[in-house]
Amino acid sequence: MSPKSKRKSALPLLMHEERFHHRAPPGAPPGTLIVDPQAPKPVITVIAYGPDGFTEERPPTLEALSAFLGRWPVTWINVDGLGDADVLKALGEMFHIHPLALEDVINVHQRSKVEPYKDNLFVVARMVELKADVLTEQVSFFLGANAVLTFQERVGDCFEPVRDRIRKPGHRIRAAGADFLLYALLDAVVDAYYPILEEFGDRLDALQEEVMAKPTRATITLVHNAKRDLRTLRRAVWPMREVFNALYRDPVPLITADTRLYFRDCYDHTIQLIDLVETYRETASDLTDVYLSSVSLKMNEIMKVLTIIATIFIPLTFIAGIYGMNFNPEASPWNMPELNWWLGYPFALGLMVATVVVMLLFFRRKGWLGPNR
Amino acid sequence: MSPKSKRKSALPLLMHEERFHHRAPPGAPPGTLIVDPQAPKPVITVIAYGPDGFTEERPPTLEALSAFLGRWPVTWINVDGLGDADVLKALGEMFHIHPLALEDVINVHQRSKVEPYKDNLFVVARMVELKADVLTEQVSFFLGANAVLTFQERVGDCFEPVRDRIRKPGHRIRAAGADFLLYALLDAVVDAYYPILEEFGDRLDALQEEVMAKPTRATITLVHNAKRDLRTLRRAVWPMREVFNALYRDPVPLITADTRLYFRDCYDHTIQLIDLVETYRETASDLTDVYLSSVSLKMNEIMKVLTIIATIFIPLTFIAGIYGMNFNPEASPWNMPELNWWLGYPFALGLMVATVVVMLLFFRRKGWLGPNR
Amino acid sequence: MSPKSKRKSALPLLMHEERFHHRAPPGAPPGTLIVDPQAPKPVITVIAYGPDGFTEERPPTLEALSAFLGRWPVTWINVDGLGDADVLKALGEMFHIHPLALEDVINVHQRSKVEPYKDNLFVVARMVELKADVLTEQVSFFLGANAVLTFQERVGDCFEPVRDRIRKPGHRIRAAGADFLLYALLDAVVDAYYPILEEFGDRLDALQEEVMAKPTRATITLVHNAKRDLRTLRRAVWPMREVFNALYRDPVPLITADTRLYFRDCYDHTIQLIDLVETYRETASDLTDVYLSSVSLKMNEIMKVLTIIATIFIPLTFIAGIYGMNFNPEASPWNMPELNWWLGYPFALGLMVATVVVMLLFFRRKGWLGPNR
Amino acid sequence: MSPKSKRKSALPLLMHEERFHHRAPPGAPPGTLIVDPQAPKPVITVIAYGPDGFTEERPPTLEALSAFLGRWPVTWINVDGLGDADVLKALGEMFHIHPLALEDVINVHQRSKVEPYKDNLFVVARMVELKADVLTEQVSFFLGANAVLTFQERVGDCFEPVRDRIRKPGHRIRAAGADFLLYALLDAVVDAYYPILEEFGDRLDALQEEVMAKPTRATITLVHNAKRDLRTLRRAVWPMREVFNALYRDPVPLITADTRLYFRDCYDHTIQLIDLVETYRETASDLTDVYLSSVSLKMNEIMKVLTIIATIFIPLTFIAGIYGMNFNPEASPWNMPELNWWLGYPFALGLMVATVVVMLLFFRRKGWLGPNR
Amino acid sequence: MSPKSKRKSALPLLMHEERFHHRAPPGAPPGTLIVDPQAPKPVITVIAYGPDGFTEERPPTLEALSAFLGRWPVTWINVDGLGDADVLKALGEMFHIHPLALEDVINVHQRSKVEPYKDNLFVVARMVELKADVLTEQVSFFLGANAVLTFQERVGDCFEPVRDRIRKPGHRIRAAGADFLLYALLDAVVDAYYPILEEFGDRLDALQEEVMAKPTRATITLVHNAKRDLRTLRRAVWPMREVFNALYRDPVPLITADTRLYFRDCYDHTIQLIDLVETYRETASDLTDVYLSSVSLKMNEIMKVLTIIATIFIPLTFIAGIYGMNFNPEASPWNMPELNWWLGYPFALGLMVATVVVMLLFFRRKGWLGPNR
Repeated sequence: MSPKSKRKSALPLLMHEERFHHRAPPGAPPGTLIVDPQAPKPVITVIAYGPDGFTEERPPTLEALSAFLGRWPVTWINVDGLGDADVLKALGEMFHIHPLALEDVINVHQRSKVEPYKDNLFVVARMVELKADVLTEQVSFFLGANAVLTFQERVGDCFEPVRDRIRKPGHRIRAAGADFLLYALLDAVVDAYYPILEEFGDRLDALQEEVMAKPTRATITLVHNAKRDLRTLRRAVWPMREVFNALYRDPVPLITADTRLYFRDCYDHTIQLIDLVETYRETASDLTDVYLSSVSLKMNEIMKVLTIIATIFIPLTFIAGIYGMNFNPEASPWNMPELNWWLGYPFALGLMVATVVVMLLFFRRKGWLGPNR
Repeated sequence: MSPKSKRKSALPLLMHEERFHHRAPPGAPPGTLIVDPQAPKPVITVIAYGPDGFTEERPPTLEALSAFLGRWPVTWINVDGLGDADVLKALGEMFHIHPLALEDVINVHQRSKVEPYKDNLFVVARMVELKADVLTEQVSFFLGANAVLTFQERVGDCFEPVRDRIRKPGHRIRAAGADFLLYALLDAVVDAYYPILEEFGDRLDALQEEVMAKPTRATITLVHNAKRDLRTLRRAVWPMREVFNALYRDPVPLITADTRLYFRDCYDHTIQLIDLVETYRETASDLTDVYLSSVSLKMNEIMKVLTIIATIFIPLTFIAGIYGMNFNPEASPWNMPELNWWLGYPFALGLMVATVVVMLLFFRRKGWLGPNR
Repeated sequence: MSPKSKRKSALPLLMHEERFHHRAPPGAPPGTLIVDPQAPKPVITVIAYGPDGFTEERPPTLEALSAFLGRWPVTWINVDGLGDADVLKALGEMFHIHPLALEDVINVHQRSKVEPYKDNLFVVARMVELKADVLTEQVSFFLGANAVLTFQERVGDCFEPVRDRIRKPGHRIRAAGADFLLYALLDAVVDAYYPILEEFGDRLDALQEEVMAKPTRATITLVHNAKRDLRTLRRAVWPMREVFNALYRDPVPLITADTRLYFRDCYDHTIQLIDLVETYRETASDLTDVYLSSVSLKMNEIMKVLTIIATIFIPLTFIAGIYGMNFNPEASPWNMPELNWWLGYPFALGLMVATVVVMLLFFRRKGWLGPNR
Repeated sequence: MSPKSKRKSALPLLMHEERFHHRAPPGAPPGTLIVDPQAPKPVITVIAYGPDGFTEERPPTLEALSAFLGRWPVTWINVDGLGDADVLKALGEMFHIHPLALEDVINVHQRSKVEPYKDNLFVVARMVELKADVLTEQVSFFLGANAVLTFQERVGDCFEPVRDRIRKPGHRIRAAGADFLLYALLDAVVDAYYPILEEFGDRLDALQEEVMAKPTRATITLVHNAKRDLRTLRRAVWPMREVFNALYRDPVPLITADTRLYFRDCYDHTIQLIDLVETYRETASDLTDVYLSSVSLKMNEIMKVLTIIATIFIPLTFIAGIYGMNFNPEASPWNMPELNWWLGYPFALGLMVATVVVMLLFFRRKGWLGPNR
Repeated sequence: MSPKSKRKSALPLLMHEERFHHRAPPGAPPGTLIVDPQAPKPVITVIAYGPDGFTEERPPTLEALSAFLGRWPVTWINVDGLGDADVLKALGEMFHIHPLALEDVINVHQRSKVEPYKDNLFVVARMVELKADVLTEQVSFFLGANAVLTFQERVGDCFEPVRDRIRKPGHRIRAAGADFLLYALLDAVVDAYYPILEEFGDRLDALQEEVMAKPTRATITLVHNAKRDLRTLRRAVWPMREVFNALYRDPVPLITADTRLYFRDCYDHTIQLIDLVETYRETASDLTDVYLSSVSLKMNEIMKVLTIIATIFIPLTFIAGIYGMNFNPEASPWNMPELNWWLGYPFALGLMVATVVVMLLFFRRKGWLGPNR
């Protein structure tokens, strides 16, 4: 994205998502819109519907977009791509968006949050994706009286099932208001976490297998990366709890009591996700311990082999050394008479065999000769 | 259960219970009932009773079930198995169950919770079972004015003692209302945790024995599994505290003040269970430390044996090596005159014995010759 | 106590107190009194007093007990032993005790707690004892208008000083009401923790000495046991904070404002105890680290000895090996002419001495020859 | 700065920022102004502005400064350097600053805080700088009705962008009040944390690379230093949350409701910074584990080489030792007949080769011959 | 102090301050004054002052003391030494001190706290001293309408600067009331922590140096002791936060609103101290990790030396062993013909040199020959 990303490819291990990019230079006035030059240009799509029908268009100009407003009971304007400050500013004016909120739309590293403004309700949520790493994308929602405006960083989202429900007549969503559309979209964001977490659970399983069976230098990197990804997930999931808690508990004029009940359901789901993420975090944290103990056991095994070999052969070599001495048997009857014994050599070999047997008994008593300890 | 389970048998180590299965695809409309195709078909049993009698039946059809309602002071409809969306929907309509609550009944990975709806009180709890691992099963309760509706994942539960109390005349439960039945059932769920935790405590004891006596590669896996099971228990037990706290403290029209006192008792029991689970968690966490130190001590012991053997024999072998040199005693009187000494060989052997004695004295001073350090 | 205890003697290491025994089978109706068959039979003693005198008796029957009530300003009925359900039930009826409270009296693993009932105030506290392990005993208190009823698991308690104060005329307690007696008893329970904790502190001191000086396999078990005992103490002490906080802050009709001030003092003491227990816990937790580092240092020392011996003698043995080769000096002047040198042998020995000197200089530079590193 | 700093250069490793310097001796009366003798002398600059213009001056005397006040809608007096108690006292009197607040200005180790006084609002914040270590500098703000007074430890700050906005006509800040200037300055302080944290993230990346690739003694020092710096950042960032929370939530007469909305934005930014710092802290904490496991793996590798070499050559040397024994083949046919075999030597060499092959097969089965395990 | 201290000198390592001594036997009636027999006898000094003058005396009797009261606007009675129960009781009656408060004065292990009584305000604080270990001393304050009564364990305190301010006319304290005197004394107690913490920081610096450079068995003891001292400091500092929070926030009739502002300043200082102590605790906790990694690296270095020496010489010794075999070259041309080669011996030596070169190349590739890795 930014020129920074090139440098990072040299240091690719840590924190893709943990890094923060603040576009506006420090001290810039509030509401400054400094667009990431590599961000895609905005693409605007509109879905407007009511109980009796719906329409789906790509207005070529902002004037064309403006013409849509107010014609249908509910209008959903979706903007993919944040790469054009002028378009965003024009949209901001059209929908009476506070400059601070618009700035947050562009600085795409916001925590999930709800901020009520005079004319609309501003909600930020984070969609999640699992490639090699966990990636998150900011989605900004503005709820007006009969419209929802969404901003996404790039094309591609998890809202297709919602669009399908709007397209098919008879779905409850067609009869409900803009607040229910907001719920449906946020619910889709939350639901999209489930398959990601299931997939992540599979990865943790595989990782655990590896840690137990053959821990290598690469394994600890994988554990470390899993922890980092879980931190990313955690930072994405936790603030959503507050979002849904606020949407469910704080009465806001734009949201009906009936829809609030649905947000309680989202709140429940978020709690489940948090539960799961925390459980995974503990599991990953355990894996470090398991890894270290696995490495220690490997070391023990290596040392045991060395010790067995060495303690068996060192005495044998010593015995061989004894009878390799050159004391002159002819100089005295005390000097290595074994060398001239009839069974001298078998006697030495027998001594060695006896030593080996004693050693093996010793090791068996120590329990070192079992299969894998 | 699901096709996923087959894949998991290849990676069986981690998180049977920690894994989450969300049936409905992300973005599905709220209240969508997507039934697990492998879930057992629902079996409905009804127990209806009053101070003067009781009846126990398996209504063959939903109409037959409907005929029961309202005839007795208290009716308990129990549904085992969640494998038929139509039956569940029909039950939902019969008892005015909110679609979101019905969806939670089917997505059997809810946390324990209480949710008051307009017509009834929805309670979720988790029953626990200890096989090789700790397994939990979701039980969903709906409390109406004079009926309790329970949904279980499969046949087999911990409610038999409650049924017995209903069957025997004279028990307090016969005279009390539906709210007391709800209490009795939830109390049975909580009580069933105690033997599980006692059994788990025994396992931890045995595990500790093993960690101290002979820690192997399998041991750390067992510790790891125990930690995982404790996480499962923890996630099952903690939310119940909130459930009973809410049932005890928040006045709800369907529950009498008298019954609320009983929920305080359940709350107390839950606190005890939490206490116990947290204590076990600390114990299991300690075991990792004990394990690592046990492995370190093993290593020390191995190294000590190696060091004793090596440091005794290496100097001996060196002495033998000296007198194995081939310097020619005839070329000069300085060249290895020992070889021709009268007591040359005994002198060399004596040198070796002296070395061994010195070494042993050194090791005794180091305290390395004690029994087990 | 229970048949379970026999099995446990085979696994005696973990959690005497951490284990929970729930007498009633799961699902039993609330208020079921299932008495531990091995619990001692109840022994009832009564002390009744007023400003002008006191009496101390063991009523032979419950009727005799009943005759005492109301005759003196304050009556203290103490029950040692919980082994007879009928007696307990009769007492419960005599003093209007709620069945749930009576059940808690028998299930002697309650956390400390205060529960106001209609006719009396139910308080549970845990007395502590330090044998080989830390043991706790549940004491249940019922405060009525002019009587205190206490239940203990067995004979023997920390209330003797309170009895002495009642026996001696002129003590403030004689003039005060039943609420002050409750305070005096609870204060005695809290005070009894202090010598236990002092003794435990001494043990931790001794344990630390051992960890630093000569850590063995037994040491880590002791550290582990100390941690377990601290968990027991912690679980006993923490809930008492809530008890005294409630007694001090929540106005209860049975307790006068003046006595509430005394409960604030108990609250203070409990905070001190908690402080102390938490400090000990941190200390014990530190000991594990100290132990592991102690073991590592031992290992380093062993390795150092091995390395010094091996690195000195291996090169020497090699030199000896060189001159033990059998190349024929007569076959060529290049073949081991040293063997026939006049000073060949002294030259070889000199080479060895030089090697030793070089090695020793190397070790001194490494700092490996210091006393204890 | 102080004479203390000289001593510290001998112990430069720990806590530049973690050390606290309290200027006034213990027990000094409150409000005592004890100036650090090495602190730079105060330099006063004034920027005064309104919608129609602005002026920027360095008043030579305090009287000249006094003449400025009240002439423009907003006046910003900035004081760089705290080295003259008289000047500070005179300023304190001119602006009705409470002695305790003035004392806090000089003791430059305050946590960030907001303290409302009768005549003005006192805010402390900490600017951050990343040299070799993380350094922080205290900035004290006093907000009056139409003036902001700022004190900095030394020349050089992050306020230049704010000055630029004041200089350029048309910026919103020119039309707003003193409270908005306070916001703009505090926002600049917060914004300045972002590039610091980005840079710090890069350092953590590089450090992680090093920990994984070649962990040395210096690496753990770097990890340790990173942790220390993160502690400094944490202590700087956390209290700012409370500051902006108070400025946003607590109504203060000097701050308009409109400006309060801007402080909510600062609050959001602070939460992001805290998030980031906590994430970095977890990462740094993980690095210690990774480091330890990296060192363990290195050890394993070393041991494996030693074991392979030793276990291969020790048996070979033993075989050579056997045939170096001097038993006399002429004394008996049993004495080392191999020495005179036709293929005796090739037989011995073959025995050795066979031993090596067996050993290598054994190591391959152990998986010790893989590239880097 | 107590007889206990003698026993402790045999186990001097742990917890001088962590140990609790409760004077009164368990179960003693509340308000029992059991004086430590070794505590110094009380010495009473009085400073009484007003805007116009002051007097400083040592009243020989309690009657003489009594004569002072009420004559001056503010009277400060200081008692050094708690070794005489009668004197303390008489003072208690003279100043209407509640028996429970007086008991707390004597049991000198109270946490810092504020307790409002009917006639006065009781405050406990802990002074701190840094000898070999951190020591704390309890100071008890009673604030009456126009008097402050302080009790200290022994002569020697941090109040001298306050006395100086009273002695010098014109100081604000002379004109203020007794509540301001209480503030001045508590502020002196808090201020006295700063130099202690600075000194402690220096010690941690030195300790860190040692841990990094040459970690010995003594080092881990020092780290352990530092942790223990930090626990003591923590237990002394944390409760003071609550004290000043209460003095600042809770309106108490004896303290004027103006003085409350000064307590807010003390509160701020306490927060800074807590911050510092927590930072030191994290640093000390880090040191354990650094220590363990330092020890591991030492081990690695030792193993590396052993491995290099052994892997170089073991093959050489094997080669020498080969040519030390006694196969008879005359028995067959296949039997060790090298022995009779013209360049046999140089060939063997060359083989050895080649082996060494290969080994050194191998070690260089492994990077084991660098200076300190």
